[in-house]
Amino acid sequence: MTQNIYDQEDFYTGYASLPRSIHGLTPTGAPEWPILRSYIPPLHNSSFLDLGCGFGWYSRWAAEQGATTVQGIDISSKMLERARNDAENRRISYQRADLESVVLEDNVYDVVFSSLALHYVVNLKGLVQQVHGTLKPGGSFVFSVEHPTVLAPRSSDPKWMLDDEGKRSWPLNGYLDEGQRERDWLAKGVVKQHRTVARYVKMLISAGFVLRAIEEWGPSIEQIESGECNWRGARERPVYLLVKAVKV
Amino acid sequence: MTQNIYDQEDFYTGYASLPRSIHGLTPTGAPEWPILRSYIPPLHNSSFLDLGCGFGWYSRWAAEQGATTVQGIDISSKMLERARNDAENRRISYQRADLESVVLEDNVYDVVFSSLALHYVVNLKGLVQQVHGTLKPGGSFVFSVEHPTVLAPRSSDPKWMLDDEGKRSWPLNGYLDEGQRERDWLAKGVVKQHRTVARYVKMLISAGFVLRAIEEWGPSIEQIESGECNWRGARERPVYLLVKAVKV
Repeated sequence: MTQNIYDQEDFYTGYASLPRSIHGLTPTGAPEWPILRSYIPPLHNSSFLDLGCGFGWYSRWAAEQGATTVQGIDISSKMLERARNDAENRRISYQRADLESVVLEDNVYDVVFSSLALHYVVNLKGLVQQVHGTLKPGGSFVFSVEHPTVLAPRSSDPKWMLDDEGKRSWPLNGYLDEGQRERDWLAKGVVKQHRTVARYVKMLISAGFVLRAIEEWGPSIEQIESGECNWRGARERPVYLLVKAVKV
Repeated sequence: MTQNIYDQEDFYTGYASLPRSIHGLTPTGAPEWPILRSYIPPLHNSSFLDLGCGFGWYSRWAAEQGATTVQGIDISSKMLERARNDAENRRISYQRADLESVVLEDNVYDVVFSSLALHYVVNLKGLVQQVHGTLKPGGSFVFSVEHPTVLAPRSSDPKWMLDDEGKRSWPLNGYLDEGQRERDWLAKGVVKQHRTVARYVKMLISAGFVLRAIEEWGPSIEQIESGECNWRGARERPVYLLVKAVKV
């Protein structure tokens, strides 16, 4: 079973006070959302599955867009509780399940979506095959994960450094050695799974998907200059990997 | 016109004495070749185009595999001269041309190949469109480039560093700011073009290709332990990006 860090009190409290948890799908809460959203086809009369739905921001958005069936799945009781409290929409249902072992019904969804959850999943190959099975032909799988350059370093708390010319640099190491990383982020020893960009793409191709769009996302120069998203060093290496793949 | 660094005396002399130039497609000369080769379909009775063919190692290999037409293109007179001297095979022809502006005939090749040349090309978008046009339906585009994490740093001579836990780390910066990089490698100020992994993939998709295979290559643990390829730090970040795309 996946480490259920989101139900751990200190982690949950920290997570719930992040800009992402407070501001949701706004430029401050999720600055990568405009690009990720552009990967999602029109949702009117469609069915939408949200893997690792957390507080339900994306599930609610999908319902607002006219999706007739919205299913959110998460392992965290605390997050699902808040998601259920926020959902007044009967078209949304939430289910507690572990993405390591969830079984999805064949051929039922138009869109499977996941925001920043899949880098927690050990058996991602199995999940990607489940996603391919549960999509209708022509359906889209749209997801974001932490970018592999962020997650690669073996340190539990990688720190920006200056290179020998004084340029702020990310200490990249361990990139080709995939597997578990423990990071101190909101709590000690949060367990994530490092995979290369190529690995994500190869898993999709192997499962039968065709890759349609990919972005190694960092804030644009406009987002930085406007102060909308002025994360330190965020042009030096990507922050998130955004992907769209289609079941043909 | 592309900087024709390979015809510059100091660069050429240095390049000609690299393991890659002496040992060719052996484990020492091109340790990434087994994977790249696996992307190339059987060549018997096929036509093969080699972009940035250099000394002609891949063109000769293609002829040996039974390709009936092999065309090598390069901007360097010195390299083509050696390639022509080494080619006894009448099915191979070499042409001097600039990949920035080369015009390729429509619908003539089964395979277009390029090893470690495309990161010199400014107008890669135009070239990729040319490649798509010159391939027959079902044809394959197989190429390698320096991995974007290698080429991203703005320094003219990036150096491995130790992170704050003493782990050897690559000083990654500038990844999201694509464009020209000048590197001191065999000669001062060698001009290359930094692009993200996502950019290469997006160019292929935009041109109409379907991505079939991708690898962020570094020597395997076996290659390192056997001494076959013991490049320093080569598991810490990828060395080459290997790609196969198909014209459907």
